[in-house]
Amino acid sequence: MTDPEELAEQVREGDLRIHELEDHTDSDTAAEARRLFVERETGTDLETIGDYSFPAEAADPNIENMIGAAQIPMGVVGPVAVNGAESSLSSGTDGGAANGEHYLPLATTEGALLASVNRGLGVIRSAGGADARITKNGMTRAPVFRVAGVAEAAETVEWVNENGDALAEAAESTTSHGELIDVEPYVVGDSVYLRFAYDTKDAMGMNMATIATGEACEIVERETPASLVALSGNLCSDKKPAAINAVEGRGRSVTADVLIPGELVEERLHTTADAIVEANTRKNLTGSAKAGSLGFNAHAANVVAAAFLATGQDEAQVVEAANTITTMDAREREDGTTDLYASVSLASLEVGTVGGGTKLPTQSEALEVLGLRGGGDPAGSNADALAEIIAVGALAGELSLLAALASRHLASAHEDLGR
Amino acid sequence: MTDPEELAEQVREGDLRIHELEDHTDSDTAAEARRLFVERETGTDLETIGDYSFPAEAADPNIENMIGAAQIPMGVVGPVAVNGAESSLSSGTDGGAANGEHYLPLATTEGALLASVNRGLGVIRSAGGADARITKNGMTRAPVFRVAGVAEAAETVEWVNENGDALAEAAESTTSHGELIDVEPYVVGDSVYLRFAYDTKDAMGMNMATIATGEACEIVERETPASLVALSGNLCSDKKPAAINAVEGRGRSVTADVLIPGELVEERLHTTADAIVEANTRKNLTGSAKAGSLGFNAHAANVVAAAFLATGQDEAQVVEAANTITTMDAREREDGTTDLYASVSLASLEVGTVGGGTKLPTQSEALEVLGLRGGGDPAGSNADALAEIIAVGALAGELSLLAALASRHLASAHEDLGR
Amino acid sequence: MTDPEELAEQVREGDLRIHELEDHTDSDTAAEARRLFVERETGTDLETIGDYSFPAEAADPNIENMIGAAQIPMGVVGPVAVNGAESSLSSGTDGGAANGEHYLPLATTEGALLASVNRGLGVIRSAGGADARITKNGMTRAPVFRVAGVAEAAETVEWVNENGDALAEAAESTTSHGELIDVEPYVVGDSVYLRFAYDTKDAMGMNMATIATGEACEIVERETPASLVALSGNLCSDKKPAAINAVEGRGRSVTADVLIPGELVEERLHTTADAIVEANTRKNLTGSAKAGSLGFNAHAANVVAAAFLATGQDEAQVVEAANTITTMDAREREDGTTDLYASVSLASLEVGTVGGGTKLPTQSEALEVLGLRGGGDPAGSNADALAEIIAVGALAGELSLLAALASRHLASAHEDLGR
Amino acid sequence: MTDPEELAEQVREGDLRIHELEDHTDSDTAAEARRLFVERETGTDLETIGDYSFPAEAADPNIENMIGAAQIPMGVVGPVAVNGAESSLSSGTDGGAANGEHYLPLATTEGALLASVNRGLGVIRSAGGADARITKNGMTRAPVFRVAGVAEAAETVEWVNENGDALAEAAESTTSHGELIDVEPYVVGDSVYLRFAYDTKDAMGMNMATIATGEACEIVERETPASLVALSGNLCSDKKPAAINAVEGRGRSVTADVLIPGELVEERLHTTADAIVEANTRKNLTGSAKAGSLGFNAHAANVVAAAFLATGQDEAQVVEAANTITTMDAREREDGTTDLYASVSLASLEVGTVGGGTKLPTQSEALEVLGLRGGGDPAGSNADALAEIIAVGALAGELSLLAALASRHLASAHEDLGR
Repeated sequence: MTDPEELAEQVREGDLRIHELEDHTDSDTAAEARRLFVERETGTDLETIGDYSFPAEAADPNIENMIGAAQIPMGVVGPVAVNGAESSLSSGTDGGAANGEHYLPLATTEGALLASVNRGLGVIRSAGGADARITKNGMTRAPVFRVAGVAEAAETVEWVNENGDALAEAAESTTSHGELIDVEPYVVGDSVYLRFAYDTKDAMGMNMATIATGEACEIVERETPASLVALSGNLCSDKKPAAINAVEGRGRSVTADVLIPGELVEERLHTTADAIVEANTRKNLTGSAKAGSLGFNAHAANVVAAAFLATGQDEAQVVEAANTITTMDAREREDGTTDLYASVSLASLEVGTVGGGTKLPTQSEALEVLGLRGGGDPAGSNADALAEIIAVGALAGELSLLAALASRHLASAHEDLGR
Repeated sequence: MTDPEELAEQVREGDLRIHELEDHTDSDTAAEARRLFVERETGTDLETIGDYSFPAEAADPNIENMIGAAQIPMGVVGPVAVNGAESSLSSGTDGGAANGEHYLPLATTEGALLASVNRGLGVIRSAGGADARITKNGMTRAPVFRVAGVAEAAETVEWVNENGDALAEAAESTTSHGELIDVEPYVVGDSVYLRFAYDTKDAMGMNMATIATGEACEIVERETPASLVALSGNLCSDKKPAAINAVEGRGRSVTADVLIPGELVEERLHTTADAIVEANTRKNLTGSAKAGSLGFNAHAANVVAAAFLATGQDEAQVVEAANTITTMDAREREDGTTDLYASVSLASLEVGTVGGGTKLPTQSEALEVLGLRGGGDPAGSNADALAEIIAVGALAGELSLLAALASRHLASAHEDLGR
Repeated sequence: MTDPEELAEQVREGDLRIHELEDHTDSDTAAEARRLFVERETGTDLETIGDYSFPAEAADPNIENMIGAAQIPMGVVGPVAVNGAESSLSSGTDGGAANGEHYLPLATTEGALLASVNRGLGVIRSAGGADARITKNGMTRAPVFRVAGVAEAAETVEWVNENGDALAEAAESTTSHGELIDVEPYVVGDSVYLRFAYDTKDAMGMNMATIATGEACEIVERETPASLVALSGNLCSDKKPAAINAVEGRGRSVTADVLIPGELVEERLHTTADAIVEANTRKNLTGSAKAGSLGFNAHAANVVAAAFLATGQDEAQVVEAANTITTMDAREREDGTTDLYASVSLASLEVGTVGGGTKLPTQSEALEVLGLRGGGDPAGSNADALAEIIAVGALAGELSLLAALASRHLASAHEDLGR
Repeated sequence: MTDPEELAEQVREGDLRIHELEDHTDSDTAAEARRLFVERETGTDLETIGDYSFPAEAADPNIENMIGAAQIPMGVVGPVAVNGAESSLSSGTDGGAANGEHYLPLATTEGALLASVNRGLGVIRSAGGADARITKNGMTRAPVFRVAGVAEAAETVEWVNENGDALAEAAESTTSHGELIDVEPYVVGDSVYLRFAYDTKDAMGMNMATIATGEACEIVERETPASLVALSGNLCSDKKPAAINAVEGRGRSVTADVLIPGELVEERLHTTADAIVEANTRKNLTGSAKAGSLGFNAHAANVVAAAFLATGQDEAQVVEAANTITTMDAREREDGTTDLYASVSLASLEVGTVGGGTKLPTQSEALEVLGLRGGGDPAGSNADALAEIIAVGALAGELSLLAALASRHLASAHEDLGR
């Protein structure tokens, strides 16, 4: 059946359920019929929601009950200058995955954000670019098991610690790319949690990690007294603010930094290294300390959220990305000038360049702008580079906002820009 | 000038800077020129990004350096059944702001999410609908001041505690709607933080709170020894995981619950109240406890993120929304049947129905579907209702996922749905 | 009966239970009989445990099943120099409660601790003394109530917010000294927590707060749908590491600071202000941030624990005392010299000079050394002063340890002193 | 010189400094002289402080500036019944280190504590004893290093990950007992933290870990670009409330549990399994969750603090011990009776039976009562057993207090017992 009006009517009359439309027609017609139904039920006009620019079928893996698309304004900032192997601060041989200059697409509804990040990126470019490194990598899934008591818990932990190979074999049998890196056991009374960590290459990897862990759980249940209660026991920990991610990382732990000559700080940020350091210490360090926070930054989540939206990442994982520490340090040169050292360290940034929302049309184009669409060579390098570029974007946002705060510009900037 | 090709060329040649395009032409042409420039610099084709369905000018308050829009698939779930004053569980007289049945638009790229939430909502409807209440409301902004030492800090705190009226007068002079509710001082050595909390009615209110607080700070600086260091000192705390929000709330503290007859649990969720309670306790309570978490839930952030995207909220504030506690309790009836009591309590949900991204076309239509576009009557009631409906959506997501985990469906659901 | 041998034999034979001895003889004989019994059961000689220097009867309110006493070495440090109203940094009129110089008794088994604190105190004295202020005061107890659901929860919160006077009247009817300062409600699904805060004057006040809250709960149960589940619902939060205490305080929030001339830093601490600031930032701020900590200090708990033991405080409340933030700042003088500003802010220090262990002989003598035995005039001033002096002691400990770390002395100091 | 009067006079006149007395006479005379000096300076009489029952010399490694001892009332509870290999709940072959029945000495000033713990221990004995297991063991020390930036940080991390053997060799060269288990690197901008974990056998091990880590740091500095800033960088994390310890453990991670027949719960605790489970869930789980806590228990710190005082542990480490999760579960038997499963899991319990305060006379006697004085065979087994017994003590305290709360006895118990 291809008449959306008729289908909508069937839904209204209860002959069809709203999520069954795709069983009776193509995806676009189903979306149209559903839109018509909702319009009539709610007395609304969903014209712009319905005016999406991709075949609805392309979104089948991403949504159910589709009626159209949310359109979020997208802009670009940059270029983001990232030093790879030839880092100015680096004495090592291994560079980061990202190198050179990249335009970074950001989608947001928060006015002033792109202007602010862009200002920071300009300063970073003038300073010769930022360094960025992945310091840890592992997508986690942590099932919880029931045991009779602590004696069985200890027995289970012992078995797990001695049988990593068997667990890896089972887990990796479900995936062509993923590798099991580690299984860490935690005991609370009669609950045993096993935190599985995987290298999921260019995929964000939650799905891969879930399926692989499911397979490994069968062995645990077979070989130990433990019974699976839930495939996720919240020590993963997905989409929740959790110290375990802030401390141990989840997805990529990525850190970026830049050394900004004092002259640039004054000319371009209209303040001094010392003033920015003071603002960072009182706000991002001491203020967050007093707030009982896991996020010691100004607004890293803003940049991450906008980059996630633009490039098809899982928007709810902005939660973990906010586990970010920003440091600022005044470094005196021999000639007495004070430069500004600035860094951001994102403990748990979960990104991918394949799978999830990355295949959708606007998202795919945005990854293309970055030169990071699809799998990297070697595998994982595209997701590494994406993480590094987002980190440098976050660094730019921190620099710009702290400079604005230090110069007392925040309220007036908001007034001007309607932010 | 209206030729995008020519403008793009001028940017390429360095005669125009990329963010200055709007100074020389209309917003749509500027976006097109910028897109052309980026396409050529990066060798890409931004066709779908450029195919947005609103006048670029409409997005001027929301973005800079616009090139188009991200299109995120949007669907609907529901109806969301919310009991207002006539709540089945309520013995009180005051109902919640939301009442009746609402279709809830959600935008996401995470397959299986809407199907999962929809299943939960169906169960909630069959159970007679959910109750939801705002238990606290206050958008906060917390500037940090420098003092000479603890003696001046004590002096400043004393002045603030005694001069609430003067601070309110100053703060409220900047806004026609907002009301200053409270100013809470915190001292750390030679830093004094003042956490201002406002009733910002139907606006999410960060901007309002920032401007009002800026005005109040001038008095603090004039009347006390304190000097402003930064208008935000991170005790606000915006877009960071922070206990202060989880404990004291920010924006709306909203809680929703439902009592599900045991028969429904078995027929529709294919498990038992006891099994769901066990999963919730081991995963959401004990697991999150062991993870050092502020989020004691399964995936509340998923629902909030999707609702935020659809309705034009600030996406980065999903971070605070994750400060959610889910409880599940088995309640025995006199006839021996065990019912399931389920609740979610979101400590810090920041939403608005005016301002920010809510005016953009698809977002505005989504709010219209909910019947909550623009200011409410009385002021604040639309944002209250939006918070309550999102909370019920989150409750549905928790119910559905916990039931799936209890039934060990997670991995296979992911396999089936490509989530 | 007064023959301990015979009593011990009766216990051994099961004719008397070990905790019933005090019913049949005086406290000292009971302790001796119990000691004899334990010696024989375990083949030990409890000579020094039995050689305590106070009538066992004096310890009746403090312990059951007494066999003697633990003897913890006690020393003194100081004098602790605290500036009251005439503070060098203060421009205000209200001084702290403590003033002048005080010897501070500390009991510990950790070698090098007193030497370290004493070094810091010497530097503080040379710098003209420290300032200290109580910035907040309130002993809390937070019962948890059961309600049917969120509607009743909202109703209960509303009643509590509107009936503060009735709650105060009930609570204060149980105490001659305590005053109810505040009742803060928190809702999680079908649980309502009410955090009662009291000014308990010179008593630490847990007992007073518990009894008063118990009385107030009866009204809550009578007037609202809420039923009491537990008189303590852990939002108090007693003897647990909890953000609510770190953010909002419990007992006294006390902060102390000192400005140390650069010359003194070099001569006496053998390092520079800059080096100490660097150690503090990397260790106490950034390190604790990365550790997911609520304690941003080096070892404040060491000094607090030792002072608590010496003066009869509740030793388990060292837990809350560790919610301490240490800040260090390099302040440049006009002549180019860099001074060191140092502060500690203890969010939740629970102390008393009456009640609890303060009446025991050695503890009472230790309070006498401080000039703070018993109730103060005005009421509360002795406990205020004790909190301030302990804070200055903690400040000294922070200074000394950070200086040692900055000079890389830690390991060798431990080697020398067997710490 | 042996005349204390004369020495005190010399101190008073400034000819001798207060901490130099031991250079001129024996330890007891020095303590007496110091006591005389303090008595005169403060107009006090330190008779009971001076009436200690050990040669002052014995306390030389534990304190400086000694004036005597604090005397804390000590009692015994028990017997503590711990099942070793023949656990009723255990199906495994490896038992815990503790086995059989032990009297546990506790020193405290908190009335009602021992009575409460004793009641719980009686119930545990009647239930056949508790199981206890060490699930993880490692004393940590985490130095912080300065690097130029993230590139050097990544380089340092890489070196550390590849050179574990060299670090172990260096670290273990300083100790005859300790073994380096793990070195975990963490990066925050230009700071690198290395968390060294050691098996320190029967010693609590902080001193051992500090010295060994100091040696290993020299290699890190030699082989990498990193420079040591502080031997402790707070990721250890010692005597601070920190998620890293609650999640990953420090010292012993120990868990204990018991299954209590429903009949016993009713007869001895005067309540039901269901009522205790409800109190535990609303208070210890949900309440602590809402409080932003790392301690999900009722008062584990009370028992730990009292056991630490009695047995010569480091009192300030009660802070870490409070990272405890208590779980309670109602388990239905086939005959319909509901039993109570109860557990405590202490993530970071730092104990030793050698070194520190364990050699002091009363402390040594208390360890003797437990049969755990000095090193165990095999090495580490005495400290393991001590941890297990303390955990069972904490379990008893939780059971008793939760039962009292469930029965609403708390306030009246306090009233009766002056707690």
